[in-house]
Amino acid sequence: MRRQNGPVPSQLVSRRDVDFLLHEWLRIEDLLRHDRYAEHDRDTVDAVVDLAEEMAREVFAPINRLLDDQEPVMRPDGTVQQPAELAAALQVYAESGLTASTFDCRVGGSQLPYVVRAAYSSFLQASSIGAFAYPFLSEGNAHLLVAHGTPEQVDRYARPVIDGRWFGTMCLSEPEAGSSLADITTTAHPQPDGTFRLVGSKMWISGGDHELRENIVHLVLARTPDAPAGVRGISLFVVPKRLVGDDGAVGERNDVALVGLNHKMGYRGTTNTLLSFGGGAFTPGGRAGAVGEVVGEVGQGLALMFHMMNEARIGVGSGAVALGYAGYLHALDYARTRTQGRPLDHRDPASPPVPIIEHPDVRRMLLAQKSYVEGGLALVLYCARLLDEAQVAAGEPERRAVTGLLDLLTPVAKSWPSEWCLRANDLAIQVHGGYGYTRDFPVEQLYRDNRLNPIHEGTHGIQALDLLGRKVPQHDGAHVVELARRVRETTDRARAATGPHAGRLADHAEALDRAVDAATRAARGALGAGSRAEALANASYYLTAFGHVVVAWLWLEQELAALEHDGAFYDGKRAAARYFFAHELPAVHHWFDLVAARDRATLDVDPASL
Amino acid sequence: MRRQNGPVPSQLVSRRDVDFLLHEWLRIEDLLRHDRYAEHDRDTVDAVVDLAEEMAREVFAPINRLLDDQEPVMRPDGTVQQPAELAAALQVYAESGLTASTFDCRVGGSQLPYVVRAAYSSFLQASSIGAFAYPFLSEGNAHLLVAHGTPEQVDRYARPVIDGRWFGTMCLSEPEAGSSLADITTTAHPQPDGTFRLVGSKMWISGGDHELRENIVHLVLARTPDAPAGVRGISLFVVPKRLVGDDGAVGERNDVALVGLNHKMGYRGTTNTLLSFGGGAFTPGGRAGAVGEVVGEVGQGLALMFHMMNEARIGVGSGAVALGYAGYLHALDYARTRTQGRPLDHRDPASPPVPIIEHPDVRRMLLAQKSYVEGGLALVLYCARLLDEAQVAAGEPERRAVTGLLDLLTPVAKSWPSEWCLRANDLAIQVHGGYGYTRDFPVEQLYRDNRLNPIHEGTHGIQALDLLGRKVPQHDGAHVVELARRVRETTDRARAATGPHAGRLADHAEALDRAVDAATRAARGALGAGSRAEALANASYYLTAFGHVVVAWLWLEQELAALEHDGAFYDGKRAAARYFFAHELPAVHHWFDLVAARDRATLDVDPASL
Repeated sequence: MRRQNGPVPSQLVSRRDVDFLLHEWLRIEDLLRHDRYAEHDRDTVDAVVDLAEEMAREVFAPINRLLDDQEPVMRPDGTVQQPAELAAALQVYAESGLTASTFDCRVGGSQLPYVVRAAYSSFLQASSIGAFAYPFLSEGNAHLLVAHGTPEQVDRYARPVIDGRWFGTMCLSEPEAGSSLADITTTAHPQPDGTFRLVGSKMWISGGDHELRENIVHLVLARTPDAPAGVRGISLFVVPKRLVGDDGAVGERNDVALVGLNHKMGYRGTTNTLLSFGGGAFTPGGRAGAVGEVVGEVGQGLALMFHMMNEARIGVGSGAVALGYAGYLHALDYARTRTQGRPLDHRDPASPPVPIIEHPDVRRMLLAQKSYVEGGLALVLYCARLLDEAQVAAGEPERRAVTGLLDLLTPVAKSWPSEWCLRANDLAIQVHGGYGYTRDFPVEQLYRDNRLNPIHEGTHGIQALDLLGRKVPQHDGAHVVELARRVRETTDRARAATGPHAGRLADHAEALDRAVDAATRAARGALGAGSRAEALANASYYLTAFGHVVVAWLWLEQELAALEHDGAFYDGKRAAARYFFAHELPAVHHWFDLVAARDRATLDVDPASL
Repeated sequence: MRRQNGPVPSQLVSRRDVDFLLHEWLRIEDLLRHDRYAEHDRDTVDAVVDLAEEMAREVFAPINRLLDDQEPVMRPDGTVQQPAELAAALQVYAESGLTASTFDCRVGGSQLPYVVRAAYSSFLQASSIGAFAYPFLSEGNAHLLVAHGTPEQVDRYARPVIDGRWFGTMCLSEPEAGSSLADITTTAHPQPDGTFRLVGSKMWISGGDHELRENIVHLVLARTPDAPAGVRGISLFVVPKRLVGDDGAVGERNDVALVGLNHKMGYRGTTNTLLSFGGGAFTPGGRAGAVGEVVGEVGQGLALMFHMMNEARIGVGSGAVALGYAGYLHALDYARTRTQGRPLDHRDPASPPVPIIEHPDVRRMLLAQKSYVEGGLALVLYCARLLDEAQVAAGEPERRAVTGLLDLLTPVAKSWPSEWCLRANDLAIQVHGGYGYTRDFPVEQLYRDNRLNPIHEGTHGIQALDLLGRKVPQHDGAHVVELARRVRETTDRARAATGPHAGRLADHAEALDRAVDAATRAARGALGAGSRAEALANASYYLTAFGHVVVAWLWLEQELAALEHDGAFYDGKRAAARYFFAHELPAVHHWFDLVAARDRATLDVDPASL
């Protein structure tokens, strides 16, 4: 990873903002003092972000529209056709060594903090979410294997991914079992040699097939023949597209076949596939089934897969932020250069038209976008930093508190950006007017790409059940207590602030404390007594409102980090925080009220009457 | 128009709902008693709706995806290539005679109420918004000419449109003047013979060119050479694509040339064009400029164009409703047939999965859609019925009250469905999960098509300024007083209701009265004293909240219409109303508070800090 020349402004993600969040707010220099990160300092961090930003701008952004225009096609021979430019771009990424950034040195990694990876990835996700998904997912795949695989599995299947030579997938859903993993039917038949033969279909597999790499490492959820019903009967298997010899050499095709490609509204750089395992297209050794090895113990499958799924969930959130961020910067540029109309107080038609950023409603749309995308980026980086804090925790209680908080925030980090940064893309189109609806401007693709994010890796509704039904009550509410403690620590600092912004900070602290109280009351009201259906009927509102509270907190944190500073950048932070507290946060009270009241409108309706 | 056999259920718009709104709620039989509609009764109305519904289902729906897949292409010779199926479908519509439905008998029309046209059009808009836009816009074009053209202009330009032989457009925007019509530069040079020669460019012209008809009648805003700056200098011209002889025969090309087609995210059945007037591609008589005739007086252009624009605005709203409605019915069907997961209170994995409509969060998404699309259809039909009431008003005061209320509601009818029925399409995708993001299901196209509606015919922000800045204070607030009077009449009836639903109706009446009070306070607070910029800075929130109040009122109206009836259909109405009052209406108070407080967050921000 070599240091590039100074960054050139791009319309992907604001580098100034990334530097502010990493260094002025999260103070990652404190993190870098730990032994684990002894190889790194501010310079190496800057160099990595420079590298990613340049690659995003020069390599991936130029092919983003092309990948949208030329979606993947399945050839008659079952292979996938994609623009040659995609493979070339991914090769540049592979050669950069960034794939290995967060892995331990012992497996060939650079042992960089996750928070740095989250920061630099935002540029790559903003430049071409569909292209970058291949290595991004693959890194999660290898992280799982490194954490839970045998040393042989790590060497055989993870190292080639860490080296950038192969890609990996996660194979969970099936055509009849999307959100409901308890109902998967793919079966793994044990073999005398300790391997398994897998038979079944897997749906919605991103990067499930392509010609971009010599091999693809599938991590597959399946049932063993005598497994109990439900999620306890699920195990995890590593199943390569091509079999791998003991020497690591890639051999004959495994019985994993591409059945079809899904044709999507957006996100078209990434193949999304229906795969057949053991369908007989390729029968290694003449025997039926795709050859796989169990990862961890039989029956642990779902728990292990969550290692990758939680990473993927935060990755979905960071992708949503990145797409929203790129849209915001495009809208901002358009609003500054497009002239149209006159100020409401100076309508003289003989005066020249003004840039549309002068119109309050355009500023509203820009401030909303700014508050969503910068708030979302803060959320994603905060979560990534929790991963790092867990790595260097001083003891088990601290580690448990940190991972518990991360567990609580994972559905929020997945869902809040997926909802509000998609909204940001919607507003970016609106700022552009009719032009935004055409394919001559990038905002319409960003909107289409981002529409996937509230769906995959668990829909908004699924995340809501996870948050209110599981994470909030977990360990007697310990995660929520930890969050409330951290929020209170922030509001105490805000109330103690002095100087010209003290009044506003105190107001924000008070509004935030009230919102936290409302969140607590809502959870108590919902989870108190009565049926689980009633408790969780309004969980979606709770998730949305909870996300707004968390992001308001992170805006107050940013205001505090900006407190002692003057200048346009810091004024912008204050303006966005002011917008978020005045225009967005108050909406949570209505949502929390519905939750607390266990409103039964959705339960009482007779489905036949709809 | 012949009576078809009984309707077959379609996934476009609920016929049962349309019949309920027309007959049980709006009681259009009362309207039909007026002399103007003497030719019509319930049977003729049913026959027309049957005809449109069948045509939507059998003729337009089957080509909707095709029109999306094969967007219009400009050939090297400057003509437009579109699928042949489009012309064939539009010919069926032309031959149905529906184009003439609302026109006066004296110009070849059927003198049907607008409310009936709005009802039957919803099926056609739902079936293929891009195809149906040609005749729909053309009807507005001819309505304007019939109202404001000379008898010769009506005969020459409107009659062929009413007969279904030609199409028409509205040409307002220019590349540098979209929302800001004051800045248009297209110039109309007067000629000795009383005609004009037009020179300039027009952008975003829907149906601006195509090979679907022998001729296209453009209605064009332009300035005369000595006109004052601003909107007072704008005049309206009728400019045919091909010149028309005194005998009505279509002659040589006028100097109107297609410069380019806009490539859009959706709505691809409709060509959207950049046109050059007087660019010299065709020079009739060897002289420069496109030949046009002034409509009305010089300088009246914008006022006259509003005749068509107001119709188009309600048409945008009805299109947004139709697209949202189709998405809702698809989502409902999917939710009833797709099985996945188990009830929250019965998680036994050995039990069979249930249809996803059993999950409260799926029901929430369905109820939200239902409340938006049925509420939106009620809004559109109510506005159309106001047009009819104006036609048959007993005297000038009544006519003024009715048209004033329609003026007030026009920005709402345009914007509220564009915002919330697009949201319905978003939820329809979400109900489908991953499948909804693919092009194998129609909901993704509906979402892309509907995204245009918050933009064209005046963006959301423009409508908001129109509502709060103009329509609310107009005539000392007379329109708002009329609206409040009608709402109060409804809430009085609701409070007087008896029977098992009386308690809920009384609660809804009280909530609605409170919301109307909040709307009044917000407008007073905003428009009180101080700068116009401050007064209107939060107008977008006012528009959204005002729309929610109006739709809540129309939901209470529907509850009253359903009051004496049992059965699934009426229970569904009550369930959607309950949802809207509990989950949606309370949100208005936060929005109105921002307006009333004249919140300055968007005004105070330094644009350089964004």
